[in-house]
Amino acid sequence: MARETGSARRQRRRRAASGNAPAGVAIKQLPWQQPELTFPPQELLNQEQLDTIHEASLKILKDIGMEFMSADARDRLKKAGADVNEETHMVRFDPAMVEELIQTAPSMFTLHARNPEKSLKIGGRYIVNGCVSSPPNVSCMDKGRRPGNTEDFQNLLRLSQYFNIIHLIGGYPVEPLDRAVSTRHLHNTRDMLTLTDKAISVYCIWGSRVSDAIEMARIGRGVSNEQLEAEPSCFTVINTNSPLKFDGMMLEGLIEMSSRNQVVCVTPFTLAGAMAPITLAGALAQQNAEALAGLVMTQIVRPGSPFVYGGFTSNVDMKSGAPAFGTPEYMKTAIIGGQLARRYNLPYRTSGVNASNTVDAQAAYESVFSLWGTTMGGGNIIKHAAGWLEGGLVASYEKLILDVDLLQMVSEFLKPVIVDKDTLGFDSIVEAGVGGHFFGTTLTQERYKDAFYAPLISDWRNYESWEEAGSPRAWQKANKIWKQALEDYVEPPIESAILEELDAHIDKISEAGGIATDF
Amino acid sequence: MARETGSARRQRRRRAASGNAPAGVAIKQLPWQQPELTFPPQELLNQEQLDTIHEASLKILKDIGMEFMSADARDRLKKAGADVNEETHMVRFDPAMVEELIQTAPSMFTLHARNPEKSLKIGGRYIVNGCVSSPPNVSCMDKGRRPGNTEDFQNLLRLSQYFNIIHLIGGYPVEPLDRAVSTRHLHNTRDMLTLTDKAISVYCIWGSRVSDAIEMARIGRGVSNEQLEAEPSCFTVINTNSPLKFDGMMLEGLIEMSSRNQVVCVTPFTLAGAMAPITLAGALAQQNAEALAGLVMTQIVRPGSPFVYGGFTSNVDMKSGAPAFGTPEYMKTAIIGGQLARRYNLPYRTSGVNASNTVDAQAAYESVFSLWGTTMGGGNIIKHAAGWLEGGLVASYEKLILDVDLLQMVSEFLKPVIVDKDTLGFDSIVEAGVGGHFFGTTLTQERYKDAFYAPLISDWRNYESWEEAGSPRAWQKANKIWKQALEDYVEPPIESAILEELDAHIDKISEAGGIATDF
Repeated sequence: MARETGSARRQRRRRAASGNAPAGVAIKQLPWQQPELTFPPQELLNQEQLDTIHEASLKILKDIGMEFMSADARDRLKKAGADVNEETHMVRFDPAMVEELIQTAPSMFTLHARNPEKSLKIGGRYIVNGCVSSPPNVSCMDKGRRPGNTEDFQNLLRLSQYFNIIHLIGGYPVEPLDRAVSTRHLHNTRDMLTLTDKAISVYCIWGSRVSDAIEMARIGRGVSNEQLEAEPSCFTVINTNSPLKFDGMMLEGLIEMSSRNQVVCVTPFTLAGAMAPITLAGALAQQNAEALAGLVMTQIVRPGSPFVYGGFTSNVDMKSGAPAFGTPEYMKTAIIGGQLARRYNLPYRTSGVNASNTVDAQAAYESVFSLWGTTMGGGNIIKHAAGWLEGGLVASYEKLILDVDLLQMVSEFLKPVIVDKDTLGFDSIVEAGVGGHFFGTTLTQERYKDAFYAPLISDWRNYESWEEAGSPRAWQKANKIWKQALEDYVEPPIESAILEELDAHIDKISEAGGIATDF
Repeated sequence: MARETGSARRQRRRRAASGNAPAGVAIKQLPWQQPELTFPPQELLNQEQLDTIHEASLKILKDIGMEFMSADARDRLKKAGADVNEETHMVRFDPAMVEELIQTAPSMFTLHARNPEKSLKIGGRYIVNGCVSSPPNVSCMDKGRRPGNTEDFQNLLRLSQYFNIIHLIGGYPVEPLDRAVSTRHLHNTRDMLTLTDKAISVYCIWGSRVSDAIEMARIGRGVSNEQLEAEPSCFTVINTNSPLKFDGMMLEGLIEMSSRNQVVCVTPFTLAGAMAPITLAGALAQQNAEALAGLVMTQIVRPGSPFVYGGFTSNVDMKSGAPAFGTPEYMKTAIIGGQLARRYNLPYRTSGVNASNTVDAQAAYESVFSLWGTTMGGGNIIKHAAGWLEGGLVASYEKLILDVDLLQMVSEFLKPVIVDKDTLGFDSIVEAGVGGHFFGTTLTQERYKDAFYAPLISDWRNYESWEEAGSPRAWQKANKIWKQALEDYVEPPIESAILEELDAHIDKISEAGGIATDF
């Protein structure tokens, strides 16, 4: 049953109304804050190499072009001066046109959340971590792997709300397959707006589905249409159908989003060797061509509308064709993707990823290698940063907790080391004495509580104590933490008038049959 | 029984003599090569902050000084102009003296291995990975955790020889506690010289033990004393007794090493909050003071003798006092340590570390965070890079394999992305066609074999195949690989005359009673 009963709704409202106590009491986590890159992002290519990739992309767009599977999109492109072939649906772009439209996209903007304190700066040195999005399956160590469903969808939203290091609801953290497709987006968006107060995403398929969700974001924020358009309040990601193809329904969504001045991120999913050339330079050139085509589309729809450059070039296992994530190749493309985005003065979206089937050492090392690439590459939006497993086929409760810990560690790494008289600690060295220890010095006493990051998962007990405690593995600690977090979770407050308006919108659309599902 | 029988030795020689087949057939690994940092190392502090830490270190050495627990060392320091207090054994240094002696140490040199192809460039952009060294315990998933012993010591040497990404035998990969202390160093050094042909380390405790090992390194290389001194062939690490104390036996060893022009690395083990100020700047200032004191000592013993700046500043868990590794704090100090070493134009030693009790997600993420710090920090010698577990209390077979994979991935990450007409792959994009795939294109066919790094451990099968295979965890794959590697291992060839000379040396020292053990 996709629709909720009135009594269930009322019950939730009561919980929400009484739920004003501060969250995060039991689990010590970092406070809400957008991390900032405090050092220059890394550059793996020199300017000449970067220009060469840029030129190669323009050549792809000029000589081959891209297939746009929407008549509306092709019309708009044609009017803007692109070379459109109505038989093949191929659109080719003059380099000058691309270069010109790059200029109109903003380099930085704010993505507004229902809770103004959780609005996000997108671009520059700012980092946004998004929860996992779109897996068809969900897993936890207690109940194993199962198809996505409403209960887990809601729980994963609660966890995404609970942990401050997750800044963005980057999509549905798992697909709730038990909800009817025609109205699923309505109930999902309602959950995003009520179980969290963070910035939300919209799925960019089908124009009317997008406009429904935008309307709900507007209601959730309690603002006018004008204010919504002045203050982007929804984020969406469009994956091109690489190589060189733009899906029609997604283009419809893009047009709806950009025309309302909402945030569009076009992310080519260019797996080298499968959907893109086997060489990293070639895969990046194709990624760049497709991302720029997306940029052009948004700027034609509405010049100055917010656009995020998405990069997602990884490789495949050439023996099996299986996608690989968190590889050395992924690190390189994550870093070079950032160089390309900055070349265009655009915010950069990348991803925290891994291909492991379980929360073991592989899941951890692929994830940290990913974060190494996304962080040093200057990623602004890190999608799938918490909960992604199996290359995106599963949302994992334990992986979400592991990732929260990893993201917090990266955030701590980014905090500058302070060098001044106090921190140089000369007096502390005198006080400890030659061969002494620092546990009792004044400096230690002053600072011991917050001197170092306290991890959620790491078990630093000695072997004997650890063995006595049953030799717990990292995933077992993670398993305890998500349960604790769900217990401590408090639904963020929302005005009852807003809730009623949301529900009235859902009822209205639902009564009209929701969206068409005959695709 | 520490001594070997003649028949055991002969048996090994036969294996060695017939063991000329190339290794690494069954396991696909990277070829022997020293990785190079192909981009500028990261800088977390600006020049002024770096200078401030430098000045703070000089102030520590001038105003407090360091305790040198060796009369010979103090004599030499006094003659060189240091301010020596014979009652307290404290030695204070004039900043000008320190600054002057920094100049005499070489910025780069070669550490010679028995096999000239495995000699190592130390310094500059070159990276050396050393195997785990010195744990008292060893573990594997089959037999669990046990005290170090000869069999495991030898097996870990074989694995260190087998994997090309391990460049340096950084010490005893586990302490073989079943060997008699008086002659243990002789048999251990013999094993290092016969089971491997890589550059070796000497334990820098007790002058005569060091000279025994240096002599064996000379015999192993088949060179004269003069050539040995012209071509450093042993590496050693001296940990200061932080804060501000230099052990007497280690100073004896240092004097022996430096006077023979062998490689000395002084590494203060400055855990912030325990053996150093709780602030990272303070712990780094103390690390720097102690390392510079070690540098001064080596350059007084023999100006121009090779010295490696060692950094090992991490933090402790302030709740329990337990040391922590692979933390955000460790990443920062690993990077800033590199900045300090480069300020002095010295090679930089750092470490691949973790504090996990088992080969789980924690072991992996702490290790990759470490490598992130050591790599971006421009580490030249990465000690404990393969096999370290439990903060160094255990050498783990499975962790060694996991680390080999991680080190290979870092090495692949360091390989530059090539951007040229071939790699841009325009023709490949045309060939694949819009919406097509690249598996069959000419470019893919030409390059698919070596296009991407093929990991040892990562399991990229889909969930169903993986589950059917018994849901193996990363450590299980690692477990299989070390067994395979031991099967494939081939003892490197050595001239029988050299073996006889080594054994004669061992017999001579052993018959004289070995080294004194009454400490």
